[in-house]
Amino acid sequence: MPIVVQKFGGTSVGDIDRIRHVAKRVIATKRAGHDVVVVVSAMAGVTDHLVGLANEMSDAPHAREYDVLVSTGEQQTVALLSMALQDAGFPARSFTGAQAGMRTDQAHSRARIRRIDTEKIRLALADDQVVVVAGFQGSDDDGNITTLGRGGSDTSAVAIAAALDADVCEIYTDVEGVFTSDPNVVPKARKLDRISYDEMLEMASLGTKVLQIRSVKFGKRYGVPIHVRSTFSEKEGTWVVPETEMMESLVVSSVTYNRNEAKVTIHLLPDTPGVAAQVFAPISEAGLLVDVIVQNVSREGHSDLTFTVPREQLAQVLPIAQKIAEELGAESVSSDDGIAKVSVVGLGMKDHAGVAGRMFRTLSNEGINIEMINTSEIKISVVIREKYTELACRSLHEAFGLGDAPMVAEEH
Amino acid sequence: MPIVVQKFGGTSVGDIDRIRHVAKRVIATKRAGHDVVVVVSAMAGVTDHLVGLANEMSDAPHAREYDVLVSTGEQQTVALLSMALQDAGFPARSFTGAQAGMRTDQAHSRARIRRIDTEKIRLALADDQVVVVAGFQGSDDDGNITTLGRGGSDTSAVAIAAALDADVCEIYTDVEGVFTSDPNVVPKARKLDRISYDEMLEMASLGTKVLQIRSVKFGKRYGVPIHVRSTFSEKEGTWVVPETEMMESLVVSSVTYNRNEAKVTIHLLPDTPGVAAQVFAPISEAGLLVDVIVQNVSREGHSDLTFTVPREQLAQVLPIAQKIAEELGAESVSSDDGIAKVSVVGLGMKDHAGVAGRMFRTLSNEGINIEMINTSEIKISVVIREKYTELACRSLHEAFGLGDAPMVAEEH
Repeated sequence: MPIVVQKFGGTSVGDIDRIRHVAKRVIATKRAGHDVVVVVSAMAGVTDHLVGLANEMSDAPHAREYDVLVSTGEQQTVALLSMALQDAGFPARSFTGAQAGMRTDQAHSRARIRRIDTEKIRLALADDQVVVVAGFQGSDDDGNITTLGRGGSDTSAVAIAAALDADVCEIYTDVEGVFTSDPNVVPKARKLDRISYDEMLEMASLGTKVLQIRSVKFGKRYGVPIHVRSTFSEKEGTWVVPETEMMESLVVSSVTYNRNEAKVTIHLLPDTPGVAAQVFAPISEAGLLVDVIVQNVSREGHSDLTFTVPREQLAQVLPIAQKIAEELGAESVSSDDGIAKVSVVGLGMKDHAGVAGRMFRTLSNEGINIEMINTSEIKISVVIREKYTELACRSLHEAFGLGDAPMVAEEH
Repeated sequence: MPIVVQKFGGTSVGDIDRIRHVAKRVIATKRAGHDVVVVVSAMAGVTDHLVGLANEMSDAPHAREYDVLVSTGEQQTVALLSMALQDAGFPARSFTGAQAGMRTDQAHSRARIRRIDTEKIRLALADDQVVVVAGFQGSDDDGNITTLGRGGSDTSAVAIAAALDADVCEIYTDVEGVFTSDPNVVPKARKLDRISYDEMLEMASLGTKVLQIRSVKFGKRYGVPIHVRSTFSEKEGTWVVPETEMMESLVVSSVTYNRNEAKVTIHLLPDTPGVAAQVFAPISEAGLLVDVIVQNVSREGHSDLTFTVPREQLAQVLPIAQKIAEELGAESVSSDDGIAKVSVVGLGMKDHAGVAGRMFRTLSNEGINIEMINTSEIKISVVIREKYTELACRSLHEAFGLGDAPMVAEEH
């Protein structure tokens, strides 16, 4: 029988009534003739409460025990959803991550999936049971409980879909799918019917929170079709699929933004070999995340190095950057947290010249100054003043024709 | 190294500060040169919350899933306590019931312990770790989570102490030990230094809530010394020990009461063989608990049959009793929920005549009418009007000299 994996997040299972609603969706899929594996998160608020307890207990909670604690959230949801299914007359069986055979490495709170021993899941499916798996968690080979890190439930779901060779992994969320831009910022934003793994990856790394980036990587590697759709509507959502399945390939498929970054500039850094490594090694060792990096020669033998970090990490980054600047003989360090990063993403731009030109011209026409530029094969990001975020998104959305008739790339 | 098992209940681990306090007690024991295994309950209120969720979800929550849900409470506590110990510099390791090797039968929510595979606990102890085990839970041979029923944490602790051949199982609670009577009712009630398993069993079954009855049975069977003491005081509590170790054996060691019963009388029941079985089989099948049973011949070939049940079950028992009465041709059924059961318990009464006489005389002197009498080898229970409960307890406590100099039984 075809297998469907369905993943429901914390909002979708936020209270008893919502869990009952999820049960109805699961039952509809079961009735349509599918074997169903459901992956669920903790009820909204529960994980935060547990993390709060851990932080109240300890400034640096012991990693193994942290996982034992927070994994109880999903365990509660699987039990409650299984009860709801049983009550509706559908045999169901809950599985903790460990029971589901989700084997990970030992990196507590950010464990990576090694393999999935699907035997118990398959036995339950063969017994016509709905399988309800706790997302976000697994166990190492010694039976210690591990967690995959926040948002790991998406990854659990796609990994299980891959291991079971499921027909589809449905990710249920509180929006109707993946949009050409944030509808709160760009009123004309339109739901995409399909998007490629690569575009979704760029969008996830640019701050679009619909799908967890690791889950998209899993989907891409194992070719799992992912269907992002709404818990609260019957409508089709957005399919995340291989590039080859893209019927229409837009030059640009979405405009995204991220207002949660700050930039740091080290001025007049002596331009010697290995200097970049010397700058970023201590920042990375401190567990801080660097995003865009731009380096420009500014005076002979010296350059200005600018990079962005998550805004909440600025206070930690600055003293490290200052220490490095001193050691390397740079002139000074400055920072700025009034920026935003706006990006256009699209498979089509690989072969289509002029996307960058059109982007820069559009922003220039609106009087928006570009402070940094960063590109990849299928995306262009610019850093601008934060106050222009909405204006930039709307004008780019318009310029690339995303609101109405899709602008299709030329055949290649 | 000598092993000490310490069990802390829900109130003792009720919030983060209390868990830190528990960690201090554990550390003191560890510093004194013991290997320590700690067994904990869910934080006060957590189990009730989880049971509430289950009941909100379902009128009859699926038994397997109920256990998956409620077992998360203890799992949270073991993680938090282990964090507290780690933070204080003491290596500690949490174990769910399944991880601790607590193997039970498959009777969800009232599972019985089959064996304890102590290998993982012993390895951790050999590694100088404090072992922190989730009480109340285990798993069957297929890895399904089971629970032992409410109050099962005491049983977990004593069973683990037995399996590890521990020197003592310390049960920490919010009172200082086992008292000769309830200090709230009998101001002169005195803490007992020692009490025998058998006396403790009678007291537990009579409603004294200091220790769970199953845990005492385990202690008796495997000869585990149980030390009941206060979480909030350093004082010695009460040792529950084999009869042979009793230095002083009081004629009567305690006076207990239970105001939570109601009595049901079936009048003029035809006195044919097997009639009692016909009465009690359907009541027992409905999962209802019958305590005291008294039968008296009232008219030739007929008798009155009276029994007591927990007060909250009276509404369920009555229609069953009425149906039986009709079927068996009895005259009528009456009930009364204004009663109390008062009992005296003591090893000494086995060989000492006159305890019953002294008890009945004392009550009679206070003008208290006895409505039912029930005896065992080491206890006498009477059912009286509820309003006389305090008066009966105080006068019996006085009559058996429990408040002051212990009244020791004659040598035998």
